[in-house]
Amino acid sequence: MDRNTISVGIIGFGTVGSGTAKILLNNKQLLKDRTGIDFNLTKIADLDIARDRGIKIPDGILTTDASEVLNDPKIDIVIELMGGIHPAKDFILKAIRNKKHVITANKALIATAGNEILSDADANEVCVGFEASVAGGIPIIKVLREGLIANNILAIYGIINGTSNYILTKMTNEKVDFSLALKEAQRLGYAEADPTFDIEGIDTAHKLTILSSLSYGIPFLYNDVYKEGITKITAMDIEFAIELGYKIKLLAILKAANSEIEMRVHPTMVPNDYLISKVDGVFNAIYVEGDAVGSTLYYGRGAGDMPTGSAVVADIVDIGERIIRSQKSRVRSQKKAAEFKIRKMEDVDSKYYFRFSALDKPGVLSKISGILGSYNISIASVIQKGRRIGGAVPLVVLTHLAKEKDVTQAIREIDQLPVVSDKTLFIRVEGEEA
Amino acid sequence: MDRNTISVGIIGFGTVGSGTAKILLNNKQLLKDRTGIDFNLTKIADLDIARDRGIKIPDGILTTDASEVLNDPKIDIVIELMGGIHPAKDFILKAIRNKKHVITANKALIATAGNEILSDADANEVCVGFEASVAGGIPIIKVLREGLIANNILAIYGIINGTSNYILTKMTNEKVDFSLALKEAQRLGYAEADPTFDIEGIDTAHKLTILSSLSYGIPFLYNDVYKEGITKITAMDIEFAIELGYKIKLLAILKAANSEIEMRVHPTMVPNDYLISKVDGVFNAIYVEGDAVGSTLYYGRGAGDMPTGSAVVADIVDIGERIIRSQKSRVRSQKKAAEFKIRKMEDVDSKYYFRFSALDKPGVLSKISGILGSYNISIASVIQKGRRIGGAVPLVVLTHLAKEKDVTQAIREIDQLPVVSDKTLFIRVEGEEA
Repeated sequence: MDRNTISVGIIGFGTVGSGTAKILLNNKQLLKDRTGIDFNLTKIADLDIARDRGIKIPDGILTTDASEVLNDPKIDIVIELMGGIHPAKDFILKAIRNKKHVITANKALIATAGNEILSDADANEVCVGFEASVAGGIPIIKVLREGLIANNILAIYGIINGTSNYILTKMTNEKVDFSLALKEAQRLGYAEADPTFDIEGIDTAHKLTILSSLSYGIPFLYNDVYKEGITKITAMDIEFAIELGYKIKLLAILKAANSEIEMRVHPTMVPNDYLISKVDGVFNAIYVEGDAVGSTLYYGRGAGDMPTGSAVVADIVDIGERIIRSQKSRVRSQKKAAEFKIRKMEDVDSKYYFRFSALDKPGVLSKISGILGSYNISIASVIQKGRRIGGAVPLVVLTHLAKEKDVTQAIREIDQLPVVSDKTLFIRVEGEEA
Repeated sequence: MDRNTISVGIIGFGTVGSGTAKILLNNKQLLKDRTGIDFNLTKIADLDIARDRGIKIPDGILTTDASEVLNDPKIDIVIELMGGIHPAKDFILKAIRNKKHVITANKALIATAGNEILSDADANEVCVGFEASVAGGIPIIKVLREGLIANNILAIYGIINGTSNYILTKMTNEKVDFSLALKEAQRLGYAEADPTFDIEGIDTAHKLTILSSLSYGIPFLYNDVYKEGITKITAMDIEFAIELGYKIKLLAILKAANSEIEMRVHPTMVPNDYLISKVDGVFNAIYVEGDAVGSTLYYGRGAGDMPTGSAVVADIVDIGERIIRSQKSRVRSQKKAAEFKIRKMEDVDSKYYFRFSALDKPGVLSKISGILGSYNISIASVIQKGRRIGGAVPLVVLTHLAKEKDVTQAIREIDQLPVVSDKTLFIRVEGEEA
């Protein structure tokens, strides 16, 4: 029996839910032309079905009861777009037990409960699509899983949180401080009232967790991701970075080196002539280096109703095609814990930018560089500006490659010097050794 | 019966053939881990099997006889990497008749004979993969066909010929003229002894033909692509462009407007703040604008053994998965001639840069602008520099949107003015109206 219809139900009629519904309704004929399949939007569940989303939804589709989606025997694919962990997780597990394929844009959920969800899906022989969970409309999941399948992934550098990139861009272009840039981001709707997830690197770490699993066939290991947000970056650091030839970006960094995997999220100084340093505002970009393909980069909108909806619908088509034209999905291979090793943050090698708050007294640089030297941290360049005899001035040092563990200890020691008046700020630096 | 082995045979053991073989041999276990499938390289045919390619090929694989690949009943997928039209086309058609799936990196062949090849493949129920034919390792075919499937494609701007981008980059950064930059490209092996395909936009037009078919579901219509190379661009034009805030790039442009499709390849002035203007050297990048996803960009190496091999192997895996896990391939829908319309170049609207060779006499600007005005071409800005009373000086004019047909006629009229000493050079300009 040939079928050519796929029915989908959406749970969560917010921004992404609206975008997905718009695309399914407006581009229905386009999808049919391209695939031969009718994709029918059968149900949309949300507690609020009264608010106008600017789309005309045909009668009989809206419901306030999620179980109408979860239990409808006609529905092939359940699309979870409500966000949060509960009840989103329960809904997804319920859908899987009901032998429905699942699509979600919920990065927090996949990063923290993805192992359980995917293993349940395997047991029930259904697919879970999460293209929309990383970098909105950029098809980075498909690129990693299929387009670059021939490659060992050597490194990934991602700007995958639009809010923090907007804030850093505004600080860079308008020389304003963090708090002012954050307020503007909130005013424009780019940052939420509680911006913690975005500015503390949590959202970026969720997405990095997902990228790492795809790149290295490892489980989702959110707790192993080192993370550091952008709240301590000042306008002064951004100016020093510019003077040194860098932009400061919140990067998700994934590296494979010496059979260990590095997973870290932190503000990073990126050389001005790297394409990714030019990715500004709310845009996302992911640099991927493969052993065969070399350097590649993928750029686009990381959020928003239509870009994220574009990713959700790509998953709908992929899963729909699979339902209709084949029985089995791709093998999902996953390494056992003994087969890989996550590098501890203290073992990471990096170059560093230090901004010391040093009293303007003779011998300060010599004291500080002495301590750095004793921890095998060698200095690449120094900027010291302005004079305030007896007062504190910023002393900026750029290092060659050093070990994080040594840096932590050196900074601790330096911060106890009587000539150092405030905690030292440091930012990790990417790029070739000069 | 469960099978988990796919056998592939390669015809053409040059640059891409070597890269593909290297990946299949070196990353064999990686591919097996990721897919559960053994991809076996069974045969490689080339007239020269003696030359050292820096890979150890196991015994019994190399042959000088292509028919050993085409007729081997064990081989599932034939990979054509010899290039050129004949005998590549005959080999591919033979493979298809033998019910073998086909993969090729041959953009000239797909652009000019793709309609026949794909229709033969449909009739024989085999797949044809050509990811490697556009932009080397960047998985742009997969992105357009699957990742952005939810989108009407509004526009594509592509730097998809590394040779001409290298030449323009060198002219821009080192202020050298075309012929010197071309020589350097040839010395480095980026340009061939006969560089016509690259510098005259032919290779770019081949690739644009392929992108247009994927984006709009139309046949491969190479002869309908307008093309213009980079040979007339001078160091002077590049300097004027910089002064006006632009870079000059050879772009493949695809646009859907008023139910017509524009397909054109020509040197284009791109605003400095566009990400694609920063794509330098032999790198490729494709900007894709979709109605849902908005602006996206894909960047990477457009040529080379390993990047292109990465794309070939991605196709091998896609087709291999399909062979093993399913029966049918995606529906390939294609519009009939009555269902779409290609815009004639003369009907295209663009902004323009003109460099007139004007005699330095009173009233020249007024004569020229008078003719432009009579063709509805309005001036956005003018640069006139240097004085050579009675001699020729460059007079640069940037226009607002104008119609190509009007521009052609205005230029013809202006070039006949006694005060104009040489043919006018013009470059189309992209970017928002100021």
